[in-house]
Amino acid sequence: MKVLQVELDQSRSYPIYIGSGLLAQTNLLTRHIRSKLVAIVTNETVAKLYLATVQQALSDYKVEAVILPDGEQYKTLQYLEKIFDGLLGHQFSRNATLIALGGGVIGDMGGFAAACYQRGIDFIQIPTTLLAQVDSSVGGKTGVNHPLGKNMIGAFYQPKCVIADADVLDTLDDRQLSAGLAEVIKYGLIRDPGFLHWLETNMALLIARDKPALSFAIERSCINKAEVVGEDEFESGVRATLNLGHTFGHAIETGSGYGFYLHGEAVAIGTCFAADLSRRLGWLNDMDVERIQKLFLAAKLPITPPEQMSPDQYLDLMSVDKKNIDGKIRLILLESLGKATLPVNVEQAQLLATLKNYAGNR
Amino acid sequence: MKVLQVELDQSRSYPIYIGSGLLAQTNLLTRHIRSKLVAIVTNETVAKLYLATVQQALSDYKVEAVILPDGEQYKTLQYLEKIFDGLLGHQFSRNATLIALGGGVIGDMGGFAAACYQRGIDFIQIPTTLLAQVDSSVGGKTGVNHPLGKNMIGAFYQPKCVIADADVLDTLDDRQLSAGLAEVIKYGLIRDPGFLHWLETNMALLIARDKPALSFAIERSCINKAEVVGEDEFESGVRATLNLGHTFGHAIETGSGYGFYLHGEAVAIGTCFAADLSRRLGWLNDMDVERIQKLFLAAKLPITPPEQMSPDQYLDLMSVDKKNIDGKIRLILLESLGKATLPVNVEQAQLLATLKNYAGNR
Repeated sequence: MKVLQVELDQSRSYPIYIGSGLLAQTNLLTRHIRSKLVAIVTNETVAKLYLATVQQALSDYKVEAVILPDGEQYKTLQYLEKIFDGLLGHQFSRNATLIALGGGVIGDMGGFAAACYQRGIDFIQIPTTLLAQVDSSVGGKTGVNHPLGKNMIGAFYQPKCVIADADVLDTLDDRQLSAGLAEVIKYGLIRDPGFLHWLETNMALLIARDKPALSFAIERSCINKAEVVGEDEFESGVRATLNLGHTFGHAIETGSGYGFYLHGEAVAIGTCFAADLSRRLGWLNDMDVERIQKLFLAAKLPITPPEQMSPDQYLDLMSVDKKNIDGKIRLILLESLGKATLPVNVEQAQLLATLKNYAGNR
Repeated sequence: MKVLQVELDQSRSYPIYIGSGLLAQTNLLTRHIRSKLVAIVTNETVAKLYLATVQQALSDYKVEAVILPDGEQYKTLQYLEKIFDGLLGHQFSRNATLIALGGGVIGDMGGFAAACYQRGIDFIQIPTTLLAQVDSSVGGKTGVNHPLGKNMIGAFYQPKCVIADADVLDTLDDRQLSAGLAEVIKYGLIRDPGFLHWLETNMALLIARDKPALSFAIERSCINKAEVVGEDEFESGVRATLNLGHTFGHAIETGSGYGFYLHGEAVAIGTCFAADLSRRLGWLNDMDVERIQKLFLAAKLPITPPEQMSPDQYLDLMSVDKKNIDGKIRLILLESLGKATLPVNVEQAQLLATLKNYAGNR
């Protein structure tokens, strides 16, 4: 087992445990739980696979499960309230611990519920998808969607620990695995050229679910994310680079209806937009852009945007994105392979050229 | 105008402005607003009285109002969502400022909405009731109610400034004024014997809305609250003393249905419970208890609990209260007039004696 430490101020630092067979290890959990009250928030799919294992690890505790339906469409205030109903229905007090057992949706909702319940209770992340292990479970972003925008309602709230068990990826379907790889690739692109090269060499192993390769990718991704988050918890600077491809990606997710694309799939397409724009600005060359597209394809990810979305629709959807300031389009782009820019103001003409190239003229 | 500074770490300190005619002063607001986007969250009652004044003070800004119905029964996640609908409907970005213009309900909801909108936007409190001016607008507690408990969903979130304009109390009805005085009296009881004595001498002036007397009471209350919050923002210690009478008070509010009692009225009755229990534990004498009751009566506040509530109902309602640990009853009591205890574990027998004396045998 590897232990990474996410360094934050005010004794809010926390460990990420990475390895195999971790879910059944009672002491990993209990060292972070301060009362006998534990709520496990999970979904119907994950509950069938792993809820019993975690419950057994906590057999000495009063454990109550809140089981939500599975899907991004339930990442709403209405379903968040079901978590509060469960906690209050069992009279859980302020010293209870909430465990989020699931993918990114469960992690975001569980974390936000923990942030808000009685103004904050302890929280543990057990991510069960690759995407959640390498991205959403690290960094403290929690929240729910609103019909007018993704993740528009939420909080920065840090867990007491994250348990990333590589074994749970055995039950992940192929499409979800690939979606997770999109964020893994992102770390290589924005700040880790050595890792990018490793990914280009080893993508076939990852797709074949080779355990040592997957564990290495999880670890290297978490190190990258933890470094960025440790440096800039509240996204006033370098943390924004983690949003490479995300502004386009969010537009694609919204424009095609939540749930049509997986988040990682939309990010892969969005990153291709960002690469195209970086090329137009003279930072990447044609070969760089091709390498990026080739790596996404090797990870079995889509690289072409939905046909029905027009450039105008992108502009509309991107103008409400929270990374913008006063309506200007600010985007994370690539200075080179392995180095992202901070948010740059992009002229509408350049943006439209990319939108038309990528979204309009196929 | 007086300016009090609430001292918090990490450059989150903020001023409280206290005086007359402050609502119309453009510069008080604008020095704390960093973009041209301002959302004013208020209710139907307050909007008629003061919304135009604040809008005029901000005539150079893009100001949108979200007007909620007036009443504690609307302090819910459902109505919170209406604030998000308004902010997103006007495409407000992360650098917008939210102004909460109203009493405690609007302050709590506006603050919580600001805490959650895009994971946190700037927030200004303009409290329009005495209760909000001396209590809820200072200290950063925000949130909404749940059918199973008051303030069960929320966040600690600090404003950029608080504007306490004594003139707005002219439009406050008598019952609301008295409810505010309950919290004013609390500061005297828990930590300021000199102020307690001043209140015993000057209560008639406050009830007659004498402006200098009211301004002094607001200032002294805010000083007390700011000192406590500055010392213990997240209620791990001394801040809990601000809850004198509140555990009983919350039970009374829930047991009689939200909205039957004003919060301050329930706190007045709850404080009489706490005083009775403090006497049983040997800390207060009969005369102390009588002085407390007399002061509440002079402030035109109720001191007898609702007849329909049984001791058992109190126990049920108090067991889900968030000030308890693992189901034990922990309460703030009085060591003497002007000095509160930290939370003490109270035996059920002692608690029942007070509940039966105060709630059962009339």
